[in-house]
Amino acid sequence: MNVQKTPAVARFLGVLGGMGPLATADFLAKLVAVRPAQSDQAHLPVLVWGDCEVPDRTAALAGLGPSPLPALLAGARFLDAFGVGAICMPCNTAHYWMDELRQACEAPWIDMIQACVSGIRQVQPAVRSVGVLTTAGAAAVDLYPRALRHAGLHAVTPTPQAMARWVTPGIELVKAHRLTEAAQLLVCAADELRECGAEVTLLGCTEIPVALASAMAAEPQRFIDATSALAWAAHAHFEAQARPVGAPAW
Amino acid sequence: MNVQKTPAVARFLGVLGGMGPLATADFLAKLVAVRPAQSDQAHLPVLVWGDCEVPDRTAALAGLGPSPLPALLAGARFLDAFGVGAICMPCNTAHYWMDELRQACEAPWIDMIQACVSGIRQVQPAVRSVGVLTTAGAAAVDLYPRALRHAGLHAVTPTPQAMARWVTPGIELVKAHRLTEAAQLLVCAADELRECGAEVTLLGCTEIPVALASAMAAEPQRFIDATSALAWAAHAHFEAQARPVGAPAW
Repeated sequence: MNVQKTPAVARFLGVLGGMGPLATADFLAKLVAVRPAQSDQAHLPVLVWGDCEVPDRTAALAGLGPSPLPALLAGARFLDAFGVGAICMPCNTAHYWMDELRQACEAPWIDMIQACVSGIRQVQPAVRSVGVLTTAGAAAVDLYPRALRHAGLHAVTPTPQAMARWVTPGIELVKAHRLTEAAQLLVCAADELRECGAEVTLLGCTEIPVALASAMAAEPQRFIDATSALAWAAHAHFEAQARPVGAPAW
Repeated sequence: MNVQKTPAVARFLGVLGGMGPLATADFLAKLVAVRPAQSDQAHLPVLVWGDCEVPDRTAALAGLGPSPLPALLAGARFLDAFGVGAICMPCNTAHYWMDELRQACEAPWIDMIQACVSGIRQVQPAVRSVGVLTTAGAAAVDLYPRALRHAGLHAVTPTPQAMARWVTPGIELVKAHRLTEAAQLLVCAADELRECGAEVTLLGCTEIPVALASAMAAEPQRFIDATSALAWAAHAHFEAQARPVGAPAW
């Protein structure tokens, strides 16, 4: 097939998804939720590459499985060749490979880690200590703690025992679509982070907010949902593109 | 870009989505739910063309707006040129144009109307009278009642007053992301269909099950969710493709 890059396709947000598939559905629902639209046509067109067969990110970062990078690059290049206006990836852990992905594409990327940390500073500027729930892979490469430090924030991370007992099995239960059991484990991990001084807790694996939807609704100030932060950033990116020169900032 | 049709891309389900965007997210979540998978990699890869700017289907069928067919064909041809193993479209009303879409593509289509009617016969074989909640556009072209009659089932449809008071505004409220208000209206319509003899009610517009999630959970036997029926049919299609010759039927 031949697809030309035209303004008509630049209106699409490219989504490098499937990691996991339920998290991609959650992201798409949040992308609708952040947009003040009254009709289908006022929402953001998306092209979703949902290859859930991308090798496991945490296994790769632990040296226990193949790198996901070739599969990630294949999806990114597909979206880029189509000519999407921007690309985002609703998988926090895969942002470890963001430099390589950026280099492979002409389209700008909307970075979930940056969107999330910026969101904390904007929405809860008084917060200093941020609990961090991520995969073991993201934890091993210091993905969020490093970004938080750069923003002048302190990261409170689970103990190895908490990762093994609650966080890692909780994430795996979401991937097996056992959401109630997952929530029970993940709430234990969030409670321990609060006891250790976390003022808010960042849900920095896209599986986690899927399981903790009820907990987030009950205590909206307590949790920072990286998936929602990415949805807001994607919406803002396209609003900025669409705004006439001289219009006030979004 | 050049994309070759290979077995590697035939493992993808093509989704002609965006009608509306929240309904597409709902379909993707249901596609995960129907699959007995324990990990991301065991789910079904998807390529989603989510062009929510496709002209309004009901307006077109009422002669009040442009045809969505050119936009539908653009998306369908994109998915087909990529080489997806099958295409589905989580929008009931747009199935009015299914013949044209089939003719434009090499890939097989998984038909939502057929999936839904077959689902009723399989899951609730004793049912004879089926309440039908759809858009005014689908109602105007007799989309579900005709398919139900072909299957030997009787359709119970809303009165014009019920369409104007409950169904059409309920669907529009989902598109504006006002789900609680939408549910209140749509439940009234479903209750009236039951009073008129409907044994079950078919939710034949993809916006409706999004709003009625709680009602479906409370009375799972009462509602037929066309979005779930499509997810089951898509899952079954790819399972059948993957099954070794001689294996038992799914």
